[in-house]
Amino acid sequence: MLQDLNLPRRLLLGPGPSLVHPRVLRAMAMPLLGHLDPIFLGLMDDIQTLLRWLFATTNPFSIAISGTGSAGMEAAVVNLIEPGDAVIVGINGVFGARLATLVERCGGKAIRVEAPWGRIIEPEAIASVLQRSGPMKAVAMVHAETSTGVWQPIEPVGRLCRDYNALFIVDTVTSLGGAPVEVDQWGIDACYSATQKCLSCPPGLAPFTLSDRAVAAIKNRRTPCQSWYLDMALVSDYWAEQTRAYHHTAPISMLYALREALRLVEEEGMVIRHARHRLNSDALIAGLIALGFDPVPLLDQRLPMLSCVSLPASIDDAAVRARLLTTYGIEIGGGLGPLKGKVWRIGLMGESSTEANVLTLLNALEEIGIQSGWLSTPGAALQAAARVYSCAATS
Amino acid sequence: MLQDLNLPRRLLLGPGPSLVHPRVLRAMAMPLLGHLDPIFLGLMDDIQTLLRWLFATTNPFSIAISGTGSAGMEAAVVNLIEPGDAVIVGINGVFGARLATLVERCGGKAIRVEAPWGRIIEPEAIASVLQRSGPMKAVAMVHAETSTGVWQPIEPVGRLCRDYNALFIVDTVTSLGGAPVEVDQWGIDACYSATQKCLSCPPGLAPFTLSDRAVAAIKNRRTPCQSWYLDMALVSDYWAEQTRAYHHTAPISMLYALREALRLVEEEGMVIRHARHRLNSDALIAGLIALGFDPVPLLDQRLPMLSCVSLPASIDDAAVRARLLTTYGIEIGGGLGPLKGKVWRIGLMGESSTEANVLTLLNALEEIGIQSGWLSTPGAALQAAARVYSCAATS
Repeated sequence: MLQDLNLPRRLLLGPGPSLVHPRVLRAMAMPLLGHLDPIFLGLMDDIQTLLRWLFATTNPFSIAISGTGSAGMEAAVVNLIEPGDAVIVGINGVFGARLATLVERCGGKAIRVEAPWGRIIEPEAIASVLQRSGPMKAVAMVHAETSTGVWQPIEPVGRLCRDYNALFIVDTVTSLGGAPVEVDQWGIDACYSATQKCLSCPPGLAPFTLSDRAVAAIKNRRTPCQSWYLDMALVSDYWAEQTRAYHHTAPISMLYALREALRLVEEEGMVIRHARHRLNSDALIAGLIALGFDPVPLLDQRLPMLSCVSLPASIDDAAVRARLLTTYGIEIGGGLGPLKGKVWRIGLMGESSTEANVLTLLNALEEIGIQSGWLSTPGAALQAAARVYSCAATS
Repeated sequence: MLQDLNLPRRLLLGPGPSLVHPRVLRAMAMPLLGHLDPIFLGLMDDIQTLLRWLFATTNPFSIAISGTGSAGMEAAVVNLIEPGDAVIVGINGVFGARLATLVERCGGKAIRVEAPWGRIIEPEAIASVLQRSGPMKAVAMVHAETSTGVWQPIEPVGRLCRDYNALFIVDTVTSLGGAPVEVDQWGIDACYSATQKCLSCPPGLAPFTLSDRAVAAIKNRRTPCQSWYLDMALVSDYWAEQTRAYHHTAPISMLYALREALRLVEEEGMVIRHARHRLNSDALIAGLIALGFDPVPLLDQRLPMLSCVSLPASIDDAAVRARLLTTYGIEIGGGLGPLKGKVWRIGLMGESSTEANVLTLLNALEEIGIQSGWLSTPGAALQAAARVYSCAATS
């Protein structure tokens, strides 16, 4: 027989999940309503309203998909792309590459526009492919590349998509709730995210919105969507007030949690929330630079909720991360793919983005550094971070 | 600004979700570990061990898929069926029909073996198609048809699949945890279920197991699986102790809940749990027959966790169900598809399957019946149920 769950306390500063507010945990643990209960359907309406606000869109089709962020990515692709469709995919990390894979798995032709890991995809590179090639069904790219910490400009690509009549698919898994996402203003047609990053809700749902252009493209498909579970034409009949047709059983408890997490975002306010992410990230990066880490993206292209930094040669990746986890209860992320062993990915997302957490992590690193011999004098990292906070306080 | 979640109390006696034990809600609300935290990976191992026990299998591949039961169905089909594959699908309700749709959405050829809604698929009907037709990639059918309450014999079809070298896909969404499911003994190659039925865990995960034959079929695919999110070759690298490769972020809180729900099943014991479902269902059906309802399946083919009954002409489906929900806080299910308005589907699943709940529902129906004029003397339904319980107590 297994033991009771007896979990250690963790400070979650990796690339997600982030810390979850007690109010969200409490909402998630409420006894269940049925998925067709009128009161539950009302909660779904609340979620749709809050998601429209969060995505800055008037799209009627704004829902939470019953799967994690990757299910959101798959839903965007399998609903909009049909066999033979050509799709430009921006690739500068793991998640852009995953988008291309998904396009190919539904019979589309992925035209890869690549940039080095750690650099943005230049909108001009997309423009030049659009000029040279025939009609494109869509352009797909990642707003916040979680594998490199790069912050991709989206708006100029949105304008190109309108000019060339291509649908625009954007991954905001890591950015939504931590940095501006302007679905309508940027001309995004399909936008998906995840709950466990800057929304600080447990993983399991994918916030998702489709423009009317995208909904029309789905209506006009030549072939049925290859996924039934993620067929948005069917799923929308459950979320729509006029129909409420059973499709699959909604993940009720997760939707309670999401509603509460979105309320917390609303209570804080979007502008303040984004500024908080920016400030804590600036303080963290100042401290990390003082310790000899080197930001992977250019400083004006790095994300405010996820810092990807190269390790100084003196630091043993696995050993220090294990020490952080076991001695300090702090989780940070290692590198993916070609960056494995070379970088750390430190998330300050949602509830995890606080001054206390920045200082706690920097202090732990300094302690480990002194003990392991790769740091001789403590204090520089904390001092550098403190300077950022005090500048902000007096400005 | 939205209000706090302030939910009414519901007695969940529909076709799922069922009531959730407070221990499961409490486990789900524990603060999060990262999805690659060694302690979290240990919990995944616990879940795999308990799922093997629950499915009565030694299959190494026994996991929980990050989606609801329908995602489990899609995972079974998209991983095993390739374009051009012929698949026999047993259809006697909504969920068999859904299986056939999924087979077609991945380019397979669905050979429908149909039976009237409310009747089982005769194994002889499957045998005769296997004899007449060429080689079949698979046979797919539903163990517990949630739309009709029919209990499908599985073992004889499993033997046929072995004889004809076809993979055997079985839907145990509604049965697992409430009636025997013997994956190895019945020769099942892919078996999926859901958490919100007889396991009494919130919806959002699909328990899933693949035989070594099924795993080999996936390894030998001619084409990549059309779903990336549900690609079991990739997902298995996350669940396997040897690899633990990141695929998508696991729904951490839901997995806490499932682990606790499985512990509760283990503590009760499978034989006692199945007998409990049987007894409460017998009492319920005796009471419903006394009220003039007519079981849709034959009495020896009806499920112990879901009773589907035809309404007497005097009863107004929507009005009585609304009354049950608003006055008594009791949810039961209506009919699906051609049975809409004609039947009720009453679930006594997992935590919902208790003597108190049977009596509470029958009493509420008697009260409504007296008030609405379709019942003249109260007590017959309660008496009939009580007789079943007292027989069981003295036998």
